[in-house]
Amino acid sequence: MKEESFPDVSSGAGQAFRPTEEWIRPGERVDDLQRNGYRILQNPQKPCFGLDAVLLSEFARVKRGEQVLDLGTGTGILPILLAAKTEGYSFTGLELQSDLAEMAQRSVGLNALEGRVFVEEGDLREASVRFGRAAFDVVVSNPPYMKGEQGRKNPEEARALARHEIACTLEDVVRETARVLRVGGRFYLVHRPRRLGEIFAALHRHQLEPKRMRLVYPYADRKANLVLLEAVRGGKPGMKVEAPLIIYREPGRYTSEMCGIYRGSEPI
Amino acid sequence: MKEESFPDVSSGAGQAFRPTEEWIRPGERVDDLQRNGYRILQNPQKPCFGLDAVLLSEFARVKRGEQVLDLGTGTGILPILLAAKTEGYSFTGLELQSDLAEMAQRSVGLNALEGRVFVEEGDLREASVRFGRAAFDVVVSNPPYMKGEQGRKNPEEARALARHEIACTLEDVVRETARVLRVGGRFYLVHRPRRLGEIFAALHRHQLEPKRMRLVYPYADRKANLVLLEAVRGGKPGMKVEAPLIIYREPGRYTSEMCGIYRGSEPI
Repeated sequence: MKEESFPDVSSGAGQAFRPTEEWIRPGERVDDLQRNGYRILQNPQKPCFGLDAVLLSEFARVKRGEQVLDLGTGTGILPILLAAKTEGYSFTGLELQSDLAEMAQRSVGLNALEGRVFVEEGDLREASVRFGRAAFDVVVSNPPYMKGEQGRKNPEEARALARHEIACTLEDVVRETARVLRVGGRFYLVHRPRRLGEIFAALHRHQLEPKRMRLVYPYADRKANLVLLEAVRGGKPGMKVEAPLIIYREPGRYTSEMCGIYRGSEPI
Repeated sequence: MKEESFPDVSSGAGQAFRPTEEWIRPGERVDDLQRNGYRILQNPQKPCFGLDAVLLSEFARVKRGEQVLDLGTGTGILPILLAAKTEGYSFTGLELQSDLAEMAQRSVGLNALEGRVFVEEGDLREASVRFGRAAFDVVVSNPPYMKGEQGRKNPEEARALARHEIACTLEDVVRETARVLRVGGRFYLVHRPRRLGEIFAALHRHQLEPKRMRLVYPYADRKANLVLLEAVRGGKPGMKVEAPLIIYREPGRYTSEMCGIYRGSEPI
């Protein structure tokens, strides 16, 4: 396979597209998603999206006409990338933190996606109350990876809420997913491999059958640091573990697969 | 990494070691395990061991003085390889089919391992009745991979019993493992990735916590076809997914890791 060095991706701010004050606030920057010309607002002081969200958007399968919910959407990266990559009908992002939800809403406007992408401020633990049961064909989530106790530093920070299970647990995400997903609907999750035992147990508890998994390894000879999972509500047992996804060929050089996938986000 | 072509491994029969009639029966052959000079009897008409057993013996960790049980030992490959590779105190193989158990017993004698390796003929579904609860530090198993219905052809054949869940199910293996293992004891399993959802569910049901996993991929760009798992009885959640194990660099050429591991067994 041909290997290329990763192209330099700088902030979209200062390039041809110049958002007006209406769209961009002090401290924010505009990043080019290199898909459909879409851009996204981020504030480096707040949770920013990572490679994990980009990989999940590649792994998830959304068919024409399907309705998609993102639990804990943050910047809105998943609904916006999925709107760019798929023929889904609608993409709804639910976000607890009002300032993030508001910024994500402005990113939707920035891309004129108001008719397909919707951001709602709210608590994912009550998603099924808000949206009703069996309301979606697909649920995606890039939830907090760490338990409340693990490496917790400043629980007041917005970033802590995005990284630690303070405002929601894995169980909350899986339970609400099972409720809002139609039978046969698909759940796409990115998480840490160290939580896999708990993830499988939670999926099983809520009748979400794991069907497809891909492990992400930083290097070919290192342990995995991300896992991508597809589970089907009420699906039959039978899983496929896809080819390993290797990020770096050597330090600073992405594999050719990563060069194709990774555009516009920070390395993990 | 340096790549080497795989060394030609022929049957041990006809080489320097010439077992007497006492040890070898018509239709059997003696294969060199290339470990400690150990050899093993196999009958090509009966279940033979594969790469999966060799990989499991590499993946399993047995500490000095530990007592190990192999559920469904077949040719006795796992107890014999683990006796060669580790400082465990004893290695017991339980096998349902009397002709296989008898042949495995002769392989033990062939290697003068009577004091460390024990073969018992019996039903693994009653392992905890036979051996008692919490009797082992380590359990290993290379069980039948396929459900009774899947691709079943001739249930009378000895090979069918080794490949299909006719005489025992995944649930039987996991339940008996949990019973015969001491708290903190380790279970090493090799299986098909397509059964992973069921495997995790069964482990969870029996308080065996998955702690370490390695996926085996035939080629770097293909889906996994084997999974190696370590679970700890009563362990805390937290799993490590080790570097991918790739078998072939290209058709007919093993990767350098495989050249180091794979000795004397048939390719999968």
